[in-house]
Amino acid sequence: MRTEYHEKLAQFQQRLGELARLAETAIGQATQALLNGDRELARTVTGGESAIMRLHRLLDTDAVNLLALQQPVASELRTVVAGLRMSADLERMGALARHVAEIVQQHETGPVVPDGVRPTLAAMGEVAGRMAADARKAMAARDATALRRLDRDDDEMDRLEAVVRQDVLAEVPPANLRTAMDLALLARFYERFGDHAVSLAKRVAYLAEHPAQDLTV
Amino acid sequence: MRTEYHEKLAQFQQRLGELARLAETAIGQATQALLNGDRELARTVTGGESAIMRLHRLLDTDAVNLLALQQPVASELRTVVAGLRMSADLERMGALARHVAEIVQQHETGPVVPDGVRPTLAAMGEVAGRMAADARKAMAARDATALRRLDRDDDEMDRLEAVVRQDVLAEVPPANLRTAMDLALLARFYERFGDHAVSLAKRVAYLAEHPAQDLTV
Repeated sequence: MRTEYHEKLAQFQQRLGELARLAETAIGQATQALLNGDRELARTVTGGESAIMRLHRLLDTDAVNLLALQQPVASELRTVVAGLRMSADLERMGALARHVAEIVQQHETGPVVPDGVRPTLAAMGEVAGRMAADARKAMAARDATALRRLDRDDDEMDRLEAVVRQDVLAEVPPANLRTAMDLALLARFYERFGDHAVSLAKRVAYLAEHPAQDLTV
Repeated sequence: MRTEYHEKLAQFQQRLGELARLAETAIGQATQALLNGDRELARTVTGGESAIMRLHRLLDTDAVNLLALQQPVASELRTVVAGLRMSADLERMGALARHVAEIVQQHETGPVVPDGVRPTLAAMGEVAGRMAADARKAMAARDATALRRLDRDDDEMDRLEAVVRQDVLAEVPPANLRTAMDLALLARFYERFGDHAVSLAKRVAYLAEHPAQDLTV
């Protein structure tokens, strides 16, 4: 019984890792679609969202069953409760990648990002991809040190969001209000994506560093 | 022991209700601050965020302790796990109200919302306040029927977000890119606020309607 329980716990962790990989892939593809105006790739991202939702729901069921079927000991309880939250963070990261892809799809022709804003949005995409990969690796290795790196990238994201606004005011032809609105939202989506990656790293650091007896999460 | 446990469970539910009230107050004040350009009131909202964070963290601790100290039976397990997620939704609602207030504070003088967009944003604020109140009451009464009303309001929010974009293109003087960006974000914040209220109602409906033996959340 205990062995079956631990198998289920291992499966839960493995599915969480899969979800992290899906979120990382989604933001990478969304960024590529955005920068290249690639509607086909954007469709791949919006289509892939259902796999993320499915895995997220599966993890919810796993977690509740783990909590119900056998009272977990302290460290396992923390793992399951933290896992529930990580699953929610990863689901949001997938949704934010989809929002980026949706803006690409709404533009029927031409480039989605004006030249003057392109370098900043490319940087946001690069940082988001790095944060997703860092968070995923930290989860797999229970590496508490990743949080510091992710915190730095989070600051960089905040800075870049402000730069997008400056870029828009400096570069976008004044008549193009639609582009200004899209860019404000795009920058926001990337910034929020980064927030969730930091949240993942915080939970990992908590699990890695917390004394086994303390149950406070 | 069992009595003490049930007291803790009741306290958990009561704190969740308090948090719902704080989120409702925050969006009401944020909307008022936005429409009246009231920086003082906006400061109240950003200042109140720490009370929301504190209560959110307290609920996290409560939940983990409830799960750890005594294995809850099926319906209690569902209540605690759903409560953990409701707490996360309410925390985000508070954060979104704060984001609205932050945009008010960033505008040092003059109205934040141009006249042409004002009716639509006022409607978004009204719907958001109603959704927060509906979700809070549904939580208190375990009322599954609230979900239908909240779903309708959610559709209305999506429609209003699109109207804000049309308003901006029709009404904002073409040179005002900054306003366009702010309005895109403001509409987004209200729309997301509504999403979280729907999420709350879904969890209430789940708790109210689900057969007592089924643990799937």
